[in-house]
Order: sequence, then structure tokens, then C-alpha cells
Amino acid sequence: MNKELHADELFKEFKETSITEFFRKNRAHLGYSGKLRSLTTAIHELVTNSLDACEEAGILPELFIEIKSLGQDHYLITSIDNGPGIPVRHIPNVFGKMLAGTKFHRNIQLRGQQGIGVAGVTLFSQITTGKPVKIRTSTGKGKVHEVELMVDITKNKAEIIRDNEYSEYWRGTEINCELRGVKFSLREQGPFEYIRRTAVANSHARIVFIDPEGRKTIFERSSEKIPKNPKAVKPHPQGMEVDDLLNMAKASKARKISSFLSSEFSRVSNAKVKEIQKRVDFDLNKNPRRITWAECEQIVDAIGEVKFLAPSSEGLVPIGEKQIKAAVLNILDPEFDAVLTRPPSVHSGGVPFQVEVAIAFGGHAGRETGNGVKFEIMRFGNRAPLIFDAGGCVITQAVNSVEWRRYGIRDYENAPFTVFINLVSTHIPYTSAGKQSISDEEEIMKEIRMALMEVGRKFSKYHSRKRKSEEREKKRQILLKYSTELAASLADLTKKDERKILEGLHELINERMLDSTEEVEEEEEEEVMDSFSDEGDRR
Amino acid sequence: MNKELHADELFKEFKETSITEFFRKNRAHLGYSGKLRSLTTAIHELVTNSLDACEEAGILPELFIEIKSLGQDHYLITSIDNGPGIPVRHIPNVFGKMLAGTKFHRNIQLRGQQGIGVAGVTLFSQITTGKPVKIRTSTGKGKVHEVELMVDITKNKAEIIRDNEYSEYWRGTEINCELRGVKFSLREQGPFEYIRRTAVANSHARIVFIDPEGRKTIFERSSEKIPKNPKAVKPHPQGMEVDDLLNMAKASKARKISSFLSSEFSRVSNAKVKEIQKRVDFDLNKNPRRITWAECEQIVDAIGEVKFLAPSSEGLVPIGEKQIKAAVLNILDPEFDAVLTRPPSVHSGGVPFQVEVAIAFGGHAGRETGNGVKFEIMRFGNRAPLIFDAGGCVITQAVNSVEWRRYGIRDYENAPFTVFINLVSTHIPYTSAGKQSISDEEEIMKEIRMALMEVGRKFSKYHSRKRKSEEREKKRQILLKYSTELAASLADLTKKDERKILEGLHELINERMLDSTEEVEEEEEEEVMDSFSDEGDRR
Repeated sequence: MNKELHADELFKEFKETSITEFFRKNRAHLGYSGKLRSLTTAIHELVTNSLDACEEAGILPELFIEIKSLGQDHYLITSIDNGPGIPVRHIPNVFGKMLAGTKFHRNIQLRGQQGIGVAGVTLFSQITTGKPVKIRTSTGKGKVHEVELMVDITKNKAEIIRDNEYSEYWRGTEINCELRGVKFSLREQGPFEYIRRTAVANSHARIVFIDPEGRKTIFERSSEKIPKNPKAVKPHPQGMEVDDLLNMAKASKARKISSFLSSEFSRVSNAKVKEIQKRVDFDLNKNPRRITWAECEQIVDAIGEVKFLAPSSEGLVPIGEKQIKAAVLNILDPEFDAVLTRPPSVHSGGVPFQVEVAIAFGGHAGRETGNGVKFEIMRFGNRAPLIFDAGGCVITQAVNSVEWRRYGIRDYENAPFTVFINLVSTHIPYTSAGKQSISDEEEIMKEIRMALMEVGRKFSKYHSRKRKSEEREKKRQILLKYSTELAASLADLTKKDERKILEGLHELINERMLDSTEEVEEEEEEEVMDSFSDEGDRR
Repeated sequence: MNKELHADELFKEFKETSITEFFRKNRAHLGYSGKLRSLTTAIHELVTNSLDACEEAGILPELFIEIKSLGQDHYLITSIDNGPGIPVRHIPNVFGKMLAGTKFHRNIQLRGQQGIGVAGVTLFSQITTGKPVKIRTSTGKGKVHEVELMVDITKNKAEIIRDNEYSEYWRGTEINCELRGVKFSLREQGPFEYIRRTAVANSHARIVFIDPEGRKTIFERSSEKIPKNPKAVKPHPQGMEVDDLLNMAKASKARKISSFLSSEFSRVSNAKVKEIQKRVDFDLNKNPRRITWAECEQIVDAIGEVKFLAPSSEGLVPIGEKQIKAAVLNILDPEFDAVLTRPPSVHSGGVPFQVEVAIAFGGHAGRETGNGVKFEIMRFGNRAPLIFDAGGCVITQAVNSVEWRRYGIRDYENAPFTVFINLVSTHIPYTSAGKQSISDEEEIMKEIRMALMEVGRKFSKYHSRKRKSEEREKKRQILLKYSTELAASLADLTKKDERKILEGLHELINERMLDSTEEVEEEEEEEVMDSFSDEGDRR
């Protein structure tokens, strides 16, 4: 038997860890695992940061990304954008400090939301190569800064190694960093595919990409329209949790709970405050800083009973049906496609979100594999492609939970079938700091399913019409084939001109078999509706 | 067109976030997503903490866990252990501070390794109920502390609400916490199954569990042997990365790089240091604090060329083949089982790890579903069950990458087939702070596959022998059946006693058909080996 140890002995080792130390040891949490994924993760962080910066500043993004090989598993990444640049005093924090940034505290729809990503690139570059990251940036006022920095890991702080200021009128940010232990590949989970999908979901961006073999790909923008500025929005009362409400109340500058509610939430009018007042047993004229947990609970319960307008779409910036359709048609050239944007909804903590889906069938839809075409899900979170950790993601789960068979897609997993889904939200509940998989919140699952079923019904209608028209054509061909024989017999019987009889028969057949579209459509509508209560073969 | 914004305006919002605030907003990273998973996560954190504490102190664990319903989606959890207790001054840090603990900095095999888990339970309890967590603990010296604490989220610090000290000779820790927005269920991913699997992998622990309907289950220990104390071990030189080496060298108290290498790594003898010296162009008598990145690179390259002993198994505590076999037989009562513990190996950063696998076929192996029996993977990391995020886990990937068909298991996904895998390591590279999925490191993937193929070969041998013996029996029955007829004909022909001829025939048949085991085995051995280069049907 082992000797028992006393607690005091065990606790001698008690220590605190900095967040940078934590992620240095647990780099897989950030997506730095495996050679290919690590490279794609770094590209992802740089690209999303550039796009966020441009969009927030209202600039049409121009991105340049180059990956140069410096030896085995060793690359230099260059990323240049025409964004707003970074004020010099913020450079060390942006690139060298984790859990610091402009995004975490605001309810604003951006790709980044954690204040970890780009500092993660600096960290990964440093621990694999020992070299500083080089940053050239200017806010466009005539001064350019060239900075080299490294991270002091135990302090979660950046150290500026070199800072060179010079005069030039230029605006944007350029990052140069070396990475080791990574590998470029054209595979589905590689940087090229990541950038291609970024271009698909961000048709307002122009992206130039040069791969390690010097191949240059230019993703031209197909739209000159900058998406509307993402705006920080007030939380929606629905889905508010007691603790959220309490924290907000304690931090509020309002004098009364009533004005706190109407001024710090969206969709809470004075009339709604009155409805809440009726349902709670304390006075909403009370100072919000003195509210109790129990009182917050009462308010949350009351909110559950009052009807509010859905969250405003103001804070949400979907890609838009037209742009998705153009992108889908452009890459997949499908036989059938349907696009849908759902109205905004709310998930936990009053966070607004919105779902956009598209499905494409036939043409180049689906994914080419060694084993024939398989179906494909293209996932996006706030327009950023999600290409890893598909299994645990609510998007994958929602897609697989739909009975595609009912909509006429048999064996959807082996069909030429692409499902495109973009979830936009002021806070996407990712399952990990690597932000590749969305947590299966009930409301999100429901919205995605609703959207998929709606486009599924469109496919079903198309599919059913196509099948009927194919059947009619088959019948017509059969009738036409036998009409010659029939005409001969009839001519023989009636002693009339065979050619005329044949013409008459053809006319009759074509009339009956080609002209019945209108009636048929109504029939089909019913049939489609039936199919939802019918598990079996629809033939 | 939107108005362009200047960077200064955008950076007005730049702020820092505390790690607690971060996880409060991103609670899904810790496993708090969905009602069932959130409850299981809390139970997981409490149970693993208790087991770690007992094992480190060399105490045979006795755990009591009760989940009481307090209303809809509202529960009280009580967790009591007979562990070493927590010294009073450490209570606030253990339960109320993230990234603080005894485990992160040491190379020691424990279930916890991040210094986040239990503070996460406090946080989740507090944000869903507004109530403090109650802790009663004593290190066994006659004083018991009853403490209530809450987390100051923006400061990542605990606040003691109440501290009551009284005299009693008792040793252990009791935690009481309320959770809301969670739900108990007996489903596979619920607390009951979590605890059952914990019992399977920890046969030295006695666990009493009372569920919300008052059902009490006692998992008695089947072994009185405490697993050997996990020991902090020195890192192994293989897999060391340049940055790791540099950091260790800078922090070393050794006077020379040579003594730094031989004293701070395992398996580095003076002879090995000499071999390294031959391969680098600088003097290893140099002060380690003055080593450069380039010099560290040379050492890492040299390490790659020198052969070292595999990591010592000292720091690794596998469950053991005997105990796994007992546990597997006990639950699954399979027709066939095989257990295997691989020798220790090293993954990234010189971290030792070891893989244990078992497979069970037939009996109650597999998982009952509405659609018949499906195969099942039971994953464990340092003996803690992993029951979420299966898809992205290296264990799942390794199991699915094996061609089970080659070993005689056709359509393994629909077979009565259970694969049990435990990965032990001083640092398991989880993909997320929720610690349910292991990153797909190459070396780990390889070791799991090797282990599975080895038990696969055992199954193949069993399967082939079983098939042959079934065939022989079939032949024997056929021969016996015709022997009567044959005996009659022979008797007729030879005019000898029919009964005697029949007896002789039976003897002959049984001799040939029952006694050939020895030869056959050798044949089979070859056949099994052949099967590895043969994709087709083995018949």
C-alpha cells in the first residue's frame, strides 16, 4: 500500500497560469493540431481579422495572402489588407495579448469574438520558430510603423523588439510570420479551400492568394457593395438569463429598473415595461443597482409571458439570398437550387441570430471522392468558413436530422447534393476556442431545421414536377411510336388518308401530353403535402 | 456606401477580459451546453477532482454523489469524498479561480490538468442560480471548515461569503451546489452512465450514486489495490520542441547544458550527452541560460538522430490488463475478448503516453439501439470516461481506420462489438477545455492503431479456429449420418458384423475430425498472416 500524503504536501505545487501559458500547452484548443490544420488555422485568423477590420471601418476589402516554403514543414506567411490599420499603442495588445480586443464586450456581429485568435498566431509562430512576428501598419495619416514583437508567455504581454516609424501615405496592415511544423496541401481542409470558401461567402472581397508553388489565384469581387456596417445591438429580452440581467442591472447608470429595461434592451417599450410591472411584486421604480436575484428571476419569468417583437435585423448582416444564389450557381452550376434567409431569432442570453441556407442538386453539387460523388455541407459562421470539427457542430447535426428522403432525395449522403449554411449572430456559441464547431443550442437547431425543411419542400416540388414531366414524355414517346401502326390500321378500316390520320393523332398526343402543366402543379402541391405524412415510396 | 471609420474610433472599444468572463460567455467550451451535457459535465468535474485527490494522496477512494430535483430543470448536487481535503487558504483558489491549481505545471498523470474544471462548476452554479457553492472540507487534523463562496467574475477571484470552522475528526471534501437549466436522464450521455463508466475504469473506487428519483446504486470496488501514486516525471527528449527546450534551459539552475540535459530529462545519460555533443558545433559546457534558439535547434536535431530508451512507465498508471479484463467480462460477458497494454511512447513535446485497449465480441457487447445492436466505443482519458464529442476524437478516428473486415469482423458498425480504449499520459492533448475529445496527434493515432490491430489478430485467430471447428463438426455430422448406410453396404459386401463396422467407422470419423487441433493451429497462423496482404474474402 502507498503511503498516504497530507493535503499540505499536495498543495505545495499550487500555482497560477497565464492564459498564454495555458494555450501554449493546449494549443489544440486554438486549432493548432496537425500540420495541415495548424496552417489553415493561422490563415483563418489572419483572414478573418482583416475582413472584420475592413467591414467595421466600411472599407471594400482587398486581401493578399502568400504562403512561401522555407524548407521542410517551414513556411513564411504574408498577409496584407487595405483595412483601417492599427493605432501604434494597440499593436502589442492586438498581436501579443490574449483575452484583449475590441470585440468581446460588444454585441456585434464579427467573425472574431474572443480576443484570442491573432495573438494565437504570434504565439504559434514564436514557439515553432523562435522568431518575432513582423507587422507593418498605418492608419493612413502619413506615418507607417514597422514593428517586430514577441510574446512574454508567463506574463501574457507582448515585447516590442523593434519599432521603425517612417512617413508614407498608405493605409492597411501587413503581417509576416514564419511557421514550422505545418504543411501546405490543396486538400479540402487546406488554406486554398479555406480561402475559396471565404470568397464564396464574401463576394465583396477581392482576395489574391499565392501558394508555395507560386500559383497565383485571384478571387475577384463579384459585388461592389460593402455589407452594411455591423452594429453593436442591445440584447433582446427573450432568452435573457437571471445572471445576465443582474450583471447588467448592477452596471447600469439608469435610475430606475423601468428605464434600465427600456433603455438597455431592444424591443422593450414603455408599454412592455408596464406589462412586466403587472407580473412582478416589486416596484420597477427601484434603483437597478439594488435589484436582487429573486427580483431578476421575477422579471425573467415575466419576460417569458410577454410578447416582444423579434430582434431587429439591424445588428445582423446576412450574406443575402441574391449573393448566395450567385455564388452557388457560379461554383456548382446545379440542376436545382434554392436559397432561403430565415427571419432573426434569439438564442441563450438574448443573443440575436439568423440562419441562411442554400441547397444545390445535380451539376457539380456534392463532393468528388474516390468513391463517386458524396453530399457536402458547407458551413459558415458570420461568413467565415468552418472546415474542421464537423461532427459535433449543430449545423451538421441539423442537416443529418432532416429526412431528405421525404423531399425526394433518396440516400442523400451519396447524392450530388450540397447544403450551404451560414449562421450570423452577435455571439456564435462555439464549442472551443478554435471556433470550428457550433454548440447545439435548441433554438439554433430549430431554426436551421426550419430553413432546411423549407428549401426541401421547394426541391420536392421541383423533383415531383420533373418526374411527372419525364413520365409524360415517356408516355408521349410510346404513343408516338404506336401512332404509326394505329394510323395504318385506322386508314385501312376507315379508308381515309393514312398521313392525315397520323398527323391528327400526333396533334392529339402532343396536346394532351405537353399542355397540362397548370393542372398538374396543383395536384403536385397536394402530393407534396401528403408526402410529409407518408414514409413510403411515393411512386 | 457606408462612411469609412478611422482606426482610432474602432479601437475606443479595446478592453481586456478576465478568463472567468471569457468562460462565462463561452461556457460551451467547458462542456456547459445543452441541459443533459451541462449536468454530466458538472458531475464529471466533481468526480475526477475527487479521484485525483484520493489517488495523489494514496487513499482508496470512496465517493458519494447525489442529484436531487428541486423543481423543473433545477437540481442540487452533493458530492462527498474521503480525499485528503483542502487546506483552508487554498479553498478560494481551488473553487473560485480559473487557471490556478496543482496540476498544470507538473508532468503528472491526473484526470484534471488545466486548473479550470471545478472553478467552472462554481461559475455555472452561480450564473444559473445566483447562489454560492457550499464546501465542507478537512485535512483530517481535527478542524473542519464550512465555506460558502461566489466568484467575482471580472476579477477571476473567489469571495468567501461565510466561513465556519468547527472541531471534528473527519477527512475529505463535500461540495453542495445548485444548478439550473440542466436535466437528469438515464441516457447514454447522462450522469448515471458517466459514473458507471468511471466505475468500470476505476475498480479500486467505491461509488455510491443516488439519482433524482431516489434510486441508489452502489458500485462496489472490485480491487483493494490503490493504483500506484502518479509521479511527476521529467520530459523525454524525443518529441521535444525547440521552444520547450529553450524555455527549460532558460529556467534551469544547472551550470552547464550537459548537466541540464542529463538532470532535467529522462533517459539522458552522460553517454547520450556525449553523443549529442558529437552532433552539435558548440560546447555543451556552456551556461544553459545563454543558449540560443539556433543551438537548441541543433540539440533537437541531434536528439532525432540518437537512440533513447522509451520513456519509463514510472509516470504512467494504466488500469492494467487484468483489471480491464475483469471489468469487461463483468459487464459484457462476451463470447470473445482480448486486452492489451502497449509499451509507453512519446507524443509532442516529449510527453509520455500509453495506450490500453480491449475488444469484446458477442454476449452483451455492442450497444442496444432501436435498430438492433450497433458497435460501441468506450473512450477514456486517464481513466476518466469521454462521452461527448466522439467524432473529432483520435480514438474514434483510429477505431474507424482499422479494417476490421480483415480480422473477420464484417460490417463492424452493426456487430455486437465493443472497443474499450484508455489513453494515459502526463498531458493528454484535448481539443477543448471541456476535455472530451483528444487531438489527432500522429504518434497517438499510431499507437492506438497498433494496439487495435494486435487485438484484431487475436480475434482473427479465434474467429478462424471457431469457423474451422464449426466446419469440421458439420463434416463429422454428415459423415456420421452416412456411416449407417455405408456400414450396411459394407456389411452386405464383406459379410461382416454391421454393428462392428459402424463402430469402426465412427471411431475413424471422430479420430480424424476431433483430433487435429494442433496441426490446424499452425495452418491458421499462416492463413491469418496471409490475410493481411489479401483484401478479399478469406474463404
